[in-house]
Amino acid sequence: MTEVVDRPGGIGIAPTNTGITKSAAANPAATGAANPRPAVDVAALGEQLLGKWADARRHARALAGHPELHKTEGLTHTEHRTRAFGQLKYLVDHGAVHRAFPAALGGADDHGGNVAGFEELVTADPSLQIKAGVQWGLFGSAVMHLGTAEHHAKWLPGIMNLEIPGCFAMTETGHGSDVASIATTAMFDVETQEFVIHTPFRAAWKDYIGNAAIDGLGAVVFAQLVTKGVNHGVHAFYVDLRDPQTKEFLPGIGGEDDGVKGGLNGIDNGRLHFDHVRIPRTNLLNRYGDVAADGTYASSIPSPGRRFFTMLGTLVQGRVSLDGAAVAASKIALTAAIRYATERRQFNASSHTDEEVLLDYQRHQRRLFTRLATTYAAGFAHEKLLQKFDDVFSGAHDTDEDRQDLETLAAALKPLSTWHALDTLQECREACGGAGFLIENRFASLRADMDVYVTFEGDNTVLLQLVAKRLLADYAKEFRNVDFGVLARYVVAQATGVAIHRTGLRQVAQFVADTGSVQKAAIALRDEEGQRQLLTDRVQTMVADVGAALKGASRLPLEKGAALFNQHQNELIDAAQAHAELLQWEAFTEALAEVRDPGTKVVLTWLRDLFGLSLIENNLSWYLMNGRLSMQRARTVGDYINRLLVKIRPHALDLVDAFGYGDEHVRAAIATGAEKTRQDEARAYVRAQRASGDAPVDEKVLLARSAAALRPAQR
Amino acid sequence: MTEVVDRPGGIGIAPTNTGITKSAAANPAATGAANPRPAVDVAALGEQLLGKWADARRHARALAGHPELHKTEGLTHTEHRTRAFGQLKYLVDHGAVHRAFPAALGGADDHGGNVAGFEELVTADPSLQIKAGVQWGLFGSAVMHLGTAEHHAKWLPGIMNLEIPGCFAMTETGHGSDVASIATTAMFDVETQEFVIHTPFRAAWKDYIGNAAIDGLGAVVFAQLVTKGVNHGVHAFYVDLRDPQTKEFLPGIGGEDDGVKGGLNGIDNGRLHFDHVRIPRTNLLNRYGDVAADGTYASSIPSPGRRFFTMLGTLVQGRVSLDGAAVAASKIALTAAIRYATERRQFNASSHTDEEVLLDYQRHQRRLFTRLATTYAAGFAHEKLLQKFDDVFSGAHDTDEDRQDLETLAAALKPLSTWHALDTLQECREACGGAGFLIENRFASLRADMDVYVTFEGDNTVLLQLVAKRLLADYAKEFRNVDFGVLARYVVAQATGVAIHRTGLRQVAQFVADTGSVQKAAIALRDEEGQRQLLTDRVQTMVADVGAALKGASRLPLEKGAALFNQHQNELIDAAQAHAELLQWEAFTEALAEVRDPGTKVVLTWLRDLFGLSLIENNLSWYLMNGRLSMQRARTVGDYINRLLVKIRPHALDLVDAFGYGDEHVRAAIATGAEKTRQDEARAYVRAQRASGDAPVDEKVLLARSAAALRPAQR
Repeated sequence: MTEVVDRPGGIGIAPTNTGITKSAAANPAATGAANPRPAVDVAALGEQLLGKWADARRHARALAGHPELHKTEGLTHTEHRTRAFGQLKYLVDHGAVHRAFPAALGGADDHGGNVAGFEELVTADPSLQIKAGVQWGLFGSAVMHLGTAEHHAKWLPGIMNLEIPGCFAMTETGHGSDVASIATTAMFDVETQEFVIHTPFRAAWKDYIGNAAIDGLGAVVFAQLVTKGVNHGVHAFYVDLRDPQTKEFLPGIGGEDDGVKGGLNGIDNGRLHFDHVRIPRTNLLNRYGDVAADGTYASSIPSPGRRFFTMLGTLVQGRVSLDGAAVAASKIALTAAIRYATERRQFNASSHTDEEVLLDYQRHQRRLFTRLATTYAAGFAHEKLLQKFDDVFSGAHDTDEDRQDLETLAAALKPLSTWHALDTLQECREACGGAGFLIENRFASLRADMDVYVTFEGDNTVLLQLVAKRLLADYAKEFRNVDFGVLARYVVAQATGVAIHRTGLRQVAQFVADTGSVQKAAIALRDEEGQRQLLTDRVQTMVADVGAALKGASRLPLEKGAALFNQHQNELIDAAQAHAELLQWEAFTEALAEVRDPGTKVVLTWLRDLFGLSLIENNLSWYLMNGRLSMQRARTVGDYINRLLVKIRPHALDLVDAFGYGDEHVRAAIATGAEKTRQDEARAYVRAQRASGDAPVDEKVLLARSAAALRPAQR
Repeated sequence: MTEVVDRPGGIGIAPTNTGITKSAAANPAATGAANPRPAVDVAALGEQLLGKWADARRHARALAGHPELHKTEGLTHTEHRTRAFGQLKYLVDHGAVHRAFPAALGGADDHGGNVAGFEELVTADPSLQIKAGVQWGLFGSAVMHLGTAEHHAKWLPGIMNLEIPGCFAMTETGHGSDVASIATTAMFDVETQEFVIHTPFRAAWKDYIGNAAIDGLGAVVFAQLVTKGVNHGVHAFYVDLRDPQTKEFLPGIGGEDDGVKGGLNGIDNGRLHFDHVRIPRTNLLNRYGDVAADGTYASSIPSPGRRFFTMLGTLVQGRVSLDGAAVAASKIALTAAIRYATERRQFNASSHTDEEVLLDYQRHQRRLFTRLATTYAAGFAHEKLLQKFDDVFSGAHDTDEDRQDLETLAAALKPLSTWHALDTLQECREACGGAGFLIENRFASLRADMDVYVTFEGDNTVLLQLVAKRLLADYAKEFRNVDFGVLARYVVAQATGVAIHRTGLRQVAQFVADTGSVQKAAIALRDEEGQRQLLTDRVQTMVADVGAALKGASRLPLEKGAALFNQHQNELIDAAQAHAELLQWEAFTEALAEVRDPGTKVVLTWLRDLFGLSLIENNLSWYLMNGRLSMQRARTVGDYINRLLVKIRPHALDLVDAFGYGDEHVRAAIATGAEKTRQDEARAYVRAQRASGDAPVDEKVLLARSAAALRPAQR
């Protein structure tokens, strides 16, 4: 088989699909070429993917490999809940949950490492991850971040060692993402020095609260703090829920079980309501706002709006960890599906000709490699997010601006990675056919559990709108303090843009500039700067377009302004997504710069290009409509992607091996080599049968022979 | 509120989003306009949607409303299996399963009606639908269609009344979609007048066989028929599996349980293997091929290939019914999500200003209405498929060509509708936020069950490739018998096409022709003929492009031909999908012609336009790259879609009501009006509190007042 070997970064001739085994790829000599096919340094790449908190991840992965923590499939939700609660104790016993807590209380003040480790638990059982998140990431975190020393001393030890399983009682039935409007009240009663926690109506029930149905003894309850006739907005209160002995609700407290869910059934989500439940004044978690004995309210943050966002700021930790868990789940799915696809033969496995394996099919490569590329991008972007998170929470870089940037980054990345995880799990399950649907192969189980990640801790669509608003605000800010000349130039530029759209001048110009060489166009597209320019331009233009359309919306009457905004809601969300995709692409590109091994760099560059080109392909109509790509150049995108798929094919196994997950994490029957064993057995049988002369003749072959016998004169 | 009322088919000014209740929409006088807003005649539309087999559907829906048939959520797979088996008996007792069987045996020879009714069972429990499908649609059907009178008399009564639960044992572990290569053998032993059924190796185990793990007493086993040293290809054999008393496997038969699956856990899928199991010669289902006592093989179909496809032809029934069930599931999901979205308010439900409901948001409309439009299209297309199926199976139109057309139509529509069902269920679940994830709201449960519909009874990707091959064959046929002159003209036309792509002349031409009026461009796009032209042109061009690229592939050596084919696999599948979408669009358009009520016609035309325009938007880059749409015209597509969303908004409830499913089918807690009740209660509470003067003052309001008080001189 003659083969033209690719030069790093070159296009060359597409290598043939067959016969490139992993070992051949890893061993340049095997190709017999002077200019060797690049090889991936799996160990080094694996280390890079582990990131800054590699040790925490390694530790958590070792733990996640313990069978005691693995999801048992087929349990009822009741049994699963019991198992998950037991697993939390197992985590405590193995010292796996205290990293974020204060050193004084046995923690390590390590925020980044804590989240990194926590994310990895998703490979054992997403219910375990989220149940641990409820207990320590939400309930414990709220006491730690919103409470003060007395609260820490009183409750954190019990929370840390699971003596007090608890709830984070914020969401209400009537309000999903709109926390500011929750209706539960905490009225201060100066007579008794107590707050009265009360649910005024059914829509104000706390809903979807983890640990609420069964396990929760305590809760941090969010309610409108009212004292001296003034509502000071949402504050957090520590409330005992159940009698530790009988596990019965305390007087005035009631609730119900949310029942079976689409997944995450190891968590006992439930509803809670309060009928004038009295708690001591000191149960107000008073770090950012306090009520004195005489009922006077005081806060270190004068603006109620800023105070609210500061108190809710700790929630970002949940979004950060969901982003990371979503990436981990995508890695698990791709590892299983790609391993299987290198073994499975769709047709004629037992015939004498060795047919292609699934992964040699173009469509199969498209389905899996584009998602592999996105997974790498999302992983590198997550590492950036985690570092930003650690900077803020460790106090290293903790300005208001840092916190806002962190919020925006999390709001941008979490939607993309969680949607991507669902998409990847589903595509992998389908790529494995019916076998992908068996629980023994894990995809369907993981997908069911990850499903709710796209709407909890901030609905993805709502989060992207937050990002869009930030983009619009930045856009407006950019032009706030400029003098008339600059503004005029900007307006001219805008107008020119419009004119270009209208007349297509720019497109025609680019079209003329293109020499007609597909090769040249492809080079421009695979050029890093070329991709950056296209992706960046799209975000800027989309934001500017919506900004221009919404100009003056804030000066309209509320209703009309909202209507105008609504007319552009779809574009706004699309712009936010484009922004988040650009962030992923930039993170991938930055990570490339850190790769030392030349072979790895070549292969990862192909993968980054595949990611970038896929983004451009997904939005190709935008680039065409807006004159950013000529018809001719646009027509090269698909072909170039197809060529990248062929180049990446020999390295696919290495690229999933670098994720570093063992069989104890993947736990998919089809990813164990069983398929190859079966094929080897079938081939051996057919060979033996042929050798023995016992093999029946095919009727078809017989017919062909007879037909030939009937026309002896033709030769 | 001033409102410009839409003229039928006109663009007008977008109606405002708020305040248009269902009753206002249904009652033109309520808008106070002379030219009334069109209203949907829900009853008449509902009748049209029920289609030709309305009675069978009504009967099946009534049955599917019985609580005895409803899925009980949260069962273990073992419990669920027991329940589903009991439900099959319930179906027998209610005479719901015999419609397709011969009248002589108590059936009705009604194939279309049988499938129509069977599809509706999905609303009760997809496990029930598929378990019934295994028993009567596959196992019973195989005995009926592949067997002869003796077989019918011997086994059909027991199959029909469930005395013999059975399996359709075709698929093997080593072969998913490639039935021709199954490795199980049936060797004829002339001495004993028996066939010896044998599994030669692990890859040849029958896998994923419904009823195999627990319930199956008998099976139709597909195996390579070998007699006198010749393999005559795949044939079907009746094999007893288990002792009816002990339920133990008979000697030589073994198997294992497929265990828990991602859904459909009411079905006991399992694996089967045979160790030289002997069955009487007469157990060969011999309608299309028989072995005489002396071992001589005979068949009424001389070609082994055609014989194989004839025997497998009965499988199309499964694909037809999955297509219909997928449409039904989409309807259920949209009914629940749209009802909820007309009540749920995302922000400030308890404040005095009445905020918009979810369905007033542009993005929400986009998410749900585009899928509503596709569901209508898929439903109308399914009705065509069902009629074609009935024509063939009733014998009314049963030529080879009819059968091929039926196969192709089913292979085109089933992938689109089943993927659409998953997409719709997921989008609806997300559109309902976390509540959508609770099993009490059904989306997650239905989605889990429907998941495997995209890979069973023919993997969707494989089916689309079959369609593509048919399109290519038709394309080749079209040019097979033409004389040189015609061919030359065709080649010229092709070359011109290429030239146009290369120079963009056509685009420039269209661009110049466009006068710059957005209005005019939009009219062209919403014009029925305009949409048809764009959609048809795309399919033809894609097929022609691939056809040209593959020219001569069949004359290449096998390996090179396959490699060339593989390089265009992605385009081929895309072309098949475009073809199937066109079929859906045409079916929708034909259905429009049958609508008598003018208001209904107007609204449904908007919905058809939304479907057509969404298809064009999804493939906009293709239309731009290939010069079919100018930049300017392409830029109007999104806006036009947004305007359609606003027009459809007031009719959304009517459009889901016309699906005709009652609460007993939808069974989603959020679609019962509970949300509105909660909001009414909250509003009443807030009103009463305000009236009493007890309402606390907001700190924000207080701050604003103080600020105002501090600057008294400013006015």
